Amino acid sequence: MDGPKLRVGILGASGYTGADAVRLLLRHPATEIAALTADRQAGRPIDAVFPHLGGFRLPDLVAWDTVDWSDLDVAVCALPHGTTQEIVAALPETVRVVDLSADFRLTDPDVYAEWYGHAHRATHLQGRAVYGLTEHARDAVAAARLVACPGCYPTAVLLALLPVVRGGLVDAGRLTVTALSGVSGAGRALKDANLFCEAGEGAHAYGIGRHRHMPEMEQELARAAGAPVALSFTPHLVPMNRGELITAHVVLAPGVGVDDLRRHLSDAYAGEPFVRVLPAGAAPATRHVRGSNHCLIGVFADRRPGEALIVSVIDNLVKGSSGQAVQNLNLMIGLPETLGLEQVALFP
Amino acid sequence: MDGPKLRVGILGASGYTGADAVRLLLRHPATEIAALTADRQAGRPIDAVFPHLGGFRLPDLVAWDTVDWSDLDVAVCALPHGTTQEIVAALPETVRVVDLSADFRLTDPDVYAEWYGHAHRATHLQGRAVYGLTEHARDAVAAARLVACPGCYPTAVLLALLPVVRGGLVDAGRLTVTALSGVSGAGRALKDANLFCEAGEGAHAYGIGRHRHMPEMEQELARAAGAPVALSFTPHLVPMNRGELITAHVVLAPGVGVDDLRRHLSDAYAGEPFVRVLPAGAAPATRHVRGSNHCLIGVFADRRPGEALIVSVIDNLVKGSSGQAVQNLNLMIGLPETLGLEQVALFP
Amino acid sequence: MDGPKLRVGILGASGYTGADAVRLLLRHPATEIAALTADRQAGRPIDAVFPHLGGFRLPDLVAWDTVDWSDLDVAVCALPHGTTQEIVAALPETVRVVDLSADFRLTDPDVYAEWYGHAHRATHLQGRAVYGLTEHARDAVAAARLVACPGCYPTAVLLALLPVVRGGLVDAGRLTVTALSGVSGAGRALKDANLFCEAGEGAHAYGIGRHRHMPEMEQELARAAGAPVALSFTPHLVPMNRGELITAHVVLAPGVGVDDLRRHLSDAYAGEPFVRVLPAGAAPATRHVRGSNHCLIGVFADRRPGEALIVSVIDNLVKGSSGQAVQNLNLMIGLPETLGLEQVALFP
Amino acid sequence: MDGPKLRVGILGASGYTGADAVRLLLRHPATEIAALTADRQAGRPIDAVFPHLGGFRLPDLVAWDTVDWSDLDVAVCALPHGTTQEIVAALPETVRVVDLSADFRLTDPDVYAEWYGHAHRATHLQGRAVYGLTEHARDAVAAARLVACPGCYPTAVLLALLPVVRGGLVDAGRLTVTALSGVSGAGRALKDANLFCEAGEGAHAYGIGRHRHMPEMEQELARAAGAPVALSFTPHLVPMNRGELITAHVVLAPGVGVDDLRRHLSDAYAGEPFVRVLPAGAAPATRHVRGSNHCLIGVFADRRPGEALIVSVIDNLVKGSSGQAVQNLNLMIGLPETLGLEQVALFP
Repeated sequence: MDGPKLRVGILGASGYTGADAVRLLLRHPATEIAALTADRQAGRPIDAVFPHLGGFRLPDLVAWDTVDWSDLDVAVCALPHGTTQEIVAALPETVRVVDLSADFRLTDPDVYAEWYGHAHRATHLQGRAVYGLTEHARDAVAAARLVACPGCYPTAVLLALLPVVRGGLVDAGRLTVTALSGVSGAGRALKDANLFCEAGEGAHAYGIGRHRHMPEMEQELARAAGAPVALSFTPHLVPMNRGELITAHVVLAPGVGVDDLRRHLSDAYAGEPFVRVLPAGAAPATRHVRGSNHCLIGVFADRRPGEALIVSVIDNLVKGSSGQAVQNLNLMIGLPETLGLEQVALFP
Repeated sequence: MDGPKLRVGILGASGYTGADAVRLLLRHPATEIAALTADRQAGRPIDAVFPHLGGFRLPDLVAWDTVDWSDLDVAVCALPHGTTQEIVAALPETVRVVDLSADFRLTDPDVYAEWYGHAHRATHLQGRAVYGLTEHARDAVAAARLVACPGCYPTAVLLALLPVVRGGLVDAGRLTVTALSGVSGAGRALKDANLFCEAGEGAHAYGIGRHRHMPEMEQELARAAGAPVALSFTPHLVPMNRGELITAHVVLAPGVGVDDLRRHLSDAYAGEPFVRVLPAGAAPATRHVRGSNHCLIGVFADRRPGEALIVSVIDNLVKGSSGQAVQNLNLMIGLPETLGLEQVALFP
Repeated sequence: MDGPKLRVGILGASGYTGADAVRLLLRHPATEIAALTADRQAGRPIDAVFPHLGGFRLPDLVAWDTVDWSDLDVAVCALPHGTTQEIVAALPETVRVVDLSADFRLTDPDVYAEWYGHAHRATHLQGRAVYGLTEHARDAVAAARLVACPGCYPTAVLLALLPVVRGGLVDAGRLTVTALSGVSGAGRALKDANLFCEAGEGAHAYGIGRHRHMPEMEQELARAAGAPVALSFTPHLVPMNRGELITAHVVLAPGVGVDDLRRHLSDAYAGEPFVRVLPAGAAPATRHVRGSNHCLIGVFADRRPGEALIVSVIDNLVKGSSGQAVQNLNLMIGLPETLGLEQVALFP
Repeated sequence: MDGPKLRVGILGASGYTGADAVRLLLRHPATEIAALTADRQAGRPIDAVFPHLGGFRLPDLVAWDTVDWSDLDVAVCALPHGTTQEIVAALPETVRVVDLSADFRLTDPDVYAEWYGHAHRATHLQGRAVYGLTEHARDAVAAARLVACPGCYPTAVLLALLPVVRGGLVDAGRLTVTALSGVSGAGRALKDANLFCEAGEGAHAYGIGRHRHMPEMEQELARAAGAPVALSFTPHLVPMNRGELITAHVVLAPGVGVDDLRRHLSDAYAGEPFVRVLPAGAAPATRHVRGSNHCLIGVFADRRPGEALIVSVIDNLVKGSSGQAVQNLNLMIGLPETLGLEQVALFP
């Protein structure tokens, strides 16, 4: 930790993921927050937008194009999709980029265009970006200049499913996933559905059959399966701030039992600092990872023989977003992967 | 509504379902609450237990065996399973019984013993009880002396699935259901998991692969399918007081499309006062039925061709419990089915 | 209830108070909802805005100036302050008006201008409006054409304090009130503070020393005291949908004890259908009036001799808004005051 | 941080404050958690009780009297009041004690007996204990063997009021305080009031006129005022896990203005790492200190000239409990006061 600190700029610091990146990097011993951008809030101190960030030595919010990027080492990009690609394309090559948007997650420009409604505007970068699900892309992340962090749902889903799909323990063509998310997963947009009175004391499914996180999950599952995958995925919004839980119903390959499934996952994540496969009978809960970078996974027999349920939980703003970004940032610059991510979950 | 009112006793009035039965019957124009029982609270006024029921003319809580049942017409029984069967067996035949427990839902004594860990103690009544999912058992309910109201999950699941299983539109062997419930679904028991700080700001799955509502769902689905059914069912607890949502993933029969599915459900529930199938694109939310006896159902295409999602929502304490009890009570005594159940949902 | 129903138009039906007026009037036996206005949503069915109001026979939303007001008997006006005065002024004299905004609550145009930042634009009506805290203005309400329903905080505060101020039991110059409100009290506006993630899991004081409900409370307290009153009033936002609680610290007049205070309030509200003074030791909770038109009041000794605390609770959208509007509407048209307001509180 | 780590035992690790002490000390660079006690859970691993503490190297829960205390340096005592005094009395003198209970906060045995209903059973220690409101007792804490950490409410109240009472800026005889607390403030006891469905979606006042935190607040305020103080204090329970807010209404001394009040508080806490007085107009919110050891204070003019409002917020489990315990522990053993307490608030 001696020597000069790495200078980091956070793009889009007025959203929840940007703010959580600030929270984590403020306590990161090897980095320094050198710039915070938020175009519509430019000129204001960050604590005018996020009072919980008051009292720290932090730069004021500025417009992204007024930053002297030659002076920075890393950009953590927490901008909306669509906007991101052009801004990242405009950053100097000397700046490493950890991106939290969807812009560089899909390798196929046609798939991007199909799901996002417009042609990608930085296809030359799209091909070079690494899909940064850290536990499954460590070497590529360490060597990358541009890392596209997975969406929150994909993080929880892929951590639960990639090992067992890759190992052929389950039928990749019959994965049926439901998911629950806290409201911060929808960002800080001013829309009816995000109001306390609309989101409180109730639950609903949304994006049924067509959620934008689908293509990246299918892309990575297909890579693991060695064949195209169509995923059934149904997210639900539930009245909590943070937390994401996915329940994956899987059909076991012939001869595979539930204990095999659990053991395979345990082995896959043995030694991982942030992923923990629970013993039989223990059910993961989102509140057990609140504010931390952990993912907990539980494996259960289904009522129907030959089928099983895998449940995983994360904090959508940490492992599902800014925490994984810091984890990748650490790797990209050769630091211990857990640096700045040691928070114990905040319960209750 | 002229003539003497029907005299109703509510057994187990110190739990949430009992209290919601009081709420509904207090405003029911053709009934009178003549007795409220709660053995451990006997002697206290009901508003010492439930202050929101203060200010009404209500009898004090008494022990169930001190009630003069010869004087009552109907018992609404909101007691725990196990306890219920012996008490119901002890009531005079002149008292009609609407039971909210699980004791009389299963027709097969062996299945009961398997799931509840002891032999049934009133098998003579078990065979005579009617499974009271009102919309699917109207005539039987009207003629019954003892109606076993479905559990809250089964109500939401069966309303969504029975018509399409019976009609052969979906593969009854591949029904995969996840469910979300508010905390009142767990009752008023003093246990860690029900504490505000344990249930708040978080979500988790529970009873995975072995929830006690499974056998009654399988029993009714099998009846509709004409063949045994094993159901994959995974419930989750989410931080809200009331509300239940189920998301059923179904595999369509050859030649059946999503619109056929929706139309079939719409037709099945045409004219029903409490079940409404939403138009394409509209997603049901638990908050839209809070405090009301309604069930909303939405039908959606899955990402995988030939598969679909059916989502239904209820208030677990109303249509999932006390509201359905009143609906059945109305039928049993020849009153309009909607009497006392006209509440509009309370939103926000 | 025989004879033709009263035809009611609800102005501003796309807000929470408007929606709650629809909820109540849908079940009101002597009225018919003949028009629903919402200028920005004109042309849409109400359930496109509020899905919980789907399935009922309700008119579509229209612009207020396209309504044929000659055909209506009553307008329930749930529009923002400022807008209201001009619209009410444009309604024909034959339409009775129950207004939920602040526009006609203040009798002094200068006070209005001071707190709302512009001159009143319908001062001729301002003088004729009745301040409709029903329990304290029954005769005037019954005779009025235009009733200004009190704000939600003033309803809870004045019900607790008016009798004891009028009776001289407390020092009107030293009333110190704090209040708690659920988020629906802030309306449905799309602003950061109303987002689930901003309002959830936290509490804060707001409008400290200068909340807009102050002048109407001071006006009514002064009327009761026979002298000007300056009120210390501090509201807090807490994470719940509905409910409002006020805690008033009072200094007792010489010779007055806490029991005198409670007895005086009990006597003042003896026979009232919606106000209930609790016995010594019982603390009112907002959840005990959720969805109902009730106000509960508790009286407690303070730690300091000669001082006391009065706590009152209401549902801000019912007794604090639409419920009181219906109560006043009933009075204005000669119906039983409780008609359509019989809902028992929804707990849990 | 070099050299052997300090060995800490946490007594009462199965409650919320104990768990939060574990959370903080797990990341404290100079201490080692050497023992965790919980008599009724003895023999179980801590993550069987608190799954969020799984995956760390922590000792199993044991009975307090099986711990070899000669081997430990510090006891953090998170036991219920009453129990605590006898256990602390039984610890060897070589163990320094940071106590979170009420047992050693009151210096006068008669006051203790009056409020807790029995004679104190360790009066010899009572006199030697230091009341550990760190910012106001730094030297005494540093020299103490036994520190009694203030209750959560007293922490928020005294940080807001002690400087202005001591400075004579306000009338110490007319302090009127209301407070709001999240449900974790009530501990993990299995009682109705702590259930999700009872505490959710509602608010109520409790302990009105007689809350057990009163005598310690009065003791410390009296010490600052140089005269006895009777405090009006009314706490409310609101539906959130963590967070505490107090609103103090104060009567200013002649010639003192609101800006003087704010400046005095700012000066009093200048340089403090954990207390921050906000600029005029900024209102503190509990969510801005969630999970952190900070206290935010805001000062506002009241509607009545010569009166003012002081609002302060803390996280009841951190600055109001375990965080302050760690802060005191650091002082007692000569470490930097902020060690292990650097967490940024978790928002949203």
